[in-house]
Amino acid sequence: MKNTNIPYKIYLSEDELPKAWYNVRADMKNKPAPLLNPGTLQPMGFEDLRPVFCDDLIRQELDDDTPYFEIPAEIRSFYKMYRPSPLVRAYCLEEKLQTPAKIYYKFEGNNTSGSHKLNSAIAQAYYAKKQGLKGVTTETGAGQWGTALSMACAYLGLDCKVFMVKCSYEQKPFRREVMRTYGASVTPSPSDTTNVGRKILAEHPGTTGSLGCAISEAVEAATSVPGYRYVLGSVLNQVLLHQSVIGLEAKAALDKYGVKPDMIIGCAGGGSNLGGLISPFMGEKLRGEADYEFIAVEPASCPSFTRGKFAYDFCDTGMVCPLAKMYTLGSGFIPSANHAGGLRYHGMSPILSQLYHDGLMEARSVEQTAVFAAAEQFARCEGILPAPESSHAIRVAIDEALKCRETGEEKTILFGLTGTGYFDMVAYERFNDGTMTDHIPTDEELAPGFAGLPNVPEK
Amino acid sequence: MKNTNIPYKIYLSEDELPKAWYNVRADMKNKPAPLLNPGTLQPMGFEDLRPVFCDDLIRQELDDDTPYFEIPAEIRSFYKMYRPSPLVRAYCLEEKLQTPAKIYYKFEGNNTSGSHKLNSAIAQAYYAKKQGLKGVTTETGAGQWGTALSMACAYLGLDCKVFMVKCSYEQKPFRREVMRTYGASVTPSPSDTTNVGRKILAEHPGTTGSLGCAISEAVEAATSVPGYRYVLGSVLNQVLLHQSVIGLEAKAALDKYGVKPDMIIGCAGGGSNLGGLISPFMGEKLRGEADYEFIAVEPASCPSFTRGKFAYDFCDTGMVCPLAKMYTLGSGFIPSANHAGGLRYHGMSPILSQLYHDGLMEARSVEQTAVFAAAEQFARCEGILPAPESSHAIRVAIDEALKCRETGEEKTILFGLTGTGYFDMVAYERFNDGTMTDHIPTDEELAPGFAGLPNVPEK
Repeated sequence: MKNTNIPYKIYLSEDELPKAWYNVRADMKNKPAPLLNPGTLQPMGFEDLRPVFCDDLIRQELDDDTPYFEIPAEIRSFYKMYRPSPLVRAYCLEEKLQTPAKIYYKFEGNNTSGSHKLNSAIAQAYYAKKQGLKGVTTETGAGQWGTALSMACAYLGLDCKVFMVKCSYEQKPFRREVMRTYGASVTPSPSDTTNVGRKILAEHPGTTGSLGCAISEAVEAATSVPGYRYVLGSVLNQVLLHQSVIGLEAKAALDKYGVKPDMIIGCAGGGSNLGGLISPFMGEKLRGEADYEFIAVEPASCPSFTRGKFAYDFCDTGMVCPLAKMYTLGSGFIPSANHAGGLRYHGMSPILSQLYHDGLMEARSVEQTAVFAAAEQFARCEGILPAPESSHAIRVAIDEALKCRETGEEKTILFGLTGTGYFDMVAYERFNDGTMTDHIPTDEELAPGFAGLPNVPEK
Repeated sequence: MKNTNIPYKIYLSEDELPKAWYNVRADMKNKPAPLLNPGTLQPMGFEDLRPVFCDDLIRQELDDDTPYFEIPAEIRSFYKMYRPSPLVRAYCLEEKLQTPAKIYYKFEGNNTSGSHKLNSAIAQAYYAKKQGLKGVTTETGAGQWGTALSMACAYLGLDCKVFMVKCSYEQKPFRREVMRTYGASVTPSPSDTTNVGRKILAEHPGTTGSLGCAISEAVEAATSVPGYRYVLGSVLNQVLLHQSVIGLEAKAALDKYGVKPDMIIGCAGGGSNLGGLISPFMGEKLRGEADYEFIAVEPASCPSFTRGKFAYDFCDTGMVCPLAKMYTLGSGFIPSANHAGGLRYHGMSPILSQLYHDGLMEARSVEQTAVFAAAEQFARCEGILPAPESSHAIRVAIDEALKCRETGEEKTILFGLTGTGYFDMVAYERFNDGTMTDHIPTDEELAPGFAGLPNVPEK
């Protein structure tokens, strides 16, 4: 064990919980492109978005200038039930890898949703409640977001309707029961309960679903019943704003011990965790106050950053949502059925897409058997059984630490451990049995998704 | 929300992690009765126990006098990966119940084993490793202990063989995969891999197993192969010693804020959590320094304290283990198949049995539908999805808080939240569907277990 004064886990006190979320857009020279109306191709304003989203959340979504948004007291009270989350020094992993690197991870899995998703779920549910709504609808992939939203809605007494990507619904029957325990209704998507679901089922019988498809159904369910709005667990600017609490806490914890990370690594599906984790550090980089290396890690089977196009695209399969400019594989893209866990969205946060496009961060793709090997190694020395999503970041953190062993560099690596894998045991079982496979889509397999991109003229 | 200066979660620093376990036997006037050789009925000494247990653990088991045992540095290092665990003020539950009572819970579920079991697993694995053994064998009921032991063995590089009670093995297939991810082998019990398992299967075809039966198999597996010993997650004195870390931390956290609980509540199966939680408080009571009300909560379907006999009994169904004097339903007792989760052991810790016999603590039994109703209520306001076992304590804590609402008493209630219910979703599903039932055994159903008690003359 290395001799050091840094504890295994750095906890902030509840008084040190951030009092405001940080909006990285305020420090970006090139702002993320606006959402467009899919019919008129005009930027969507407050009134355009009101049928779908809650008012206060639209204000957050559209605000590229305000650097800080105060966290309402009610949300801070809820945060105190599971936050501040620990920043952990991975002493055991470092020793196992025999690396001179110093590895830290911000662990967001110590709450029943099993991930960081709760940070934005309570915020979105709070604003829905404040607006006097009856309930919210949403989609969920791996199930963390749906669970998080169910918890937040149970706490506030809101109705919660979740459309769950069918393959996850089948792989994770127990996630459904957690959501039901919190009083939510859960429907496998595509379903025959919406027009868009019936249309997708007719066109693609036997489909295992996709996030893009579940989003379409949830939006339809929200807009066809009075008193409901749609909420989303990733991709949107507002979500990255709420998730900045991760990075703000991580930075405060590191600052306490005078530690500055060289490299910050996070898994990226829609970008909620990565965007939240890196936001305050990226702000320093954008303001020229510090430099960091940022690495987004995505599955090779759903490679939006590394093989996608930076273009306006539909956020959903049913094409009922606004268009967003982002790195995308096309809204028709559905990852191979052997893909485990989340990180299966065809697009990527417009904020992160712009930052990546501007060369402010890197991206890597990794294959899932390598990811589960990292997960197992991590679990056996650090004790925590990681979510498959989080394990993408673990894979690259281990790879970088092993490079340090070769070069002798004492880099400080920070990664986001977004959640736990307790509901991913079907995937772990496949890995334990040696039956897990990898799938890297060929260019031919990616072509149809790209062919479906809408034709939006450059300004 | 009540106005108070006590945070939602009281965390001790890693420096405040207890440096020694507390042995409550040192302060007991009436010591727990010694283990007896089932053949000779003579007390078993160090040499008698060596074929089954690790040497250092036997020393701890037999020592009724030493009040503190130093926690080895290696175990403290491991503890630091998930301890100190939080002591939580249940502000939201208090508000929901509209009670003047102040409710605290010591939450032991924030580790991958999902419970407090890891506290003793790492200690037992450490002493096995120190003795140069190849591996250990054990039984597991609900699966927490097996998972905990798998994690500890993976960390130390020990082989781990787990016999899992068959009904849990079937109800909780994913628990098996967690254990396998940590490198353990898992066998449903009764199995045809041991003599005693084959005998039980022949006598009771179709049995869903019991802890007592799995213990017999694990002991046989340990004693029939060189380099192995048997380890146990509850009941034994050594386990309560290790688990005292729960109570020591809880007491230190409360002392920081000058809080003295009136009432301490814990679920009781074999007694590991309850014994650990109450130990330092019971020590004060035994020494006449303070008074507390202690309540053991057990399932009505397996009521060792409330309907059992205080007598010498076999610890296992196969009658290969030493005899222990305890509250017991008889080693042949198997709870009804509708019983969910752990707390299904026929006996009870000899230490707790003696304390209960001496009037130093109370016991109550509760029915499982009432337990799951408390679990759901707790989950929806406190956020954490509790284990069925832990929810027994929640049930009584809520009942006591509601009594305070009637009387106006501002009692301070502390209960042990031993773990999370992520692997108990089959049981939650039954509760959500309204198909969960209760079973209180009749006197006739209890009679065969009592009839099988060994005939041990009183000294």
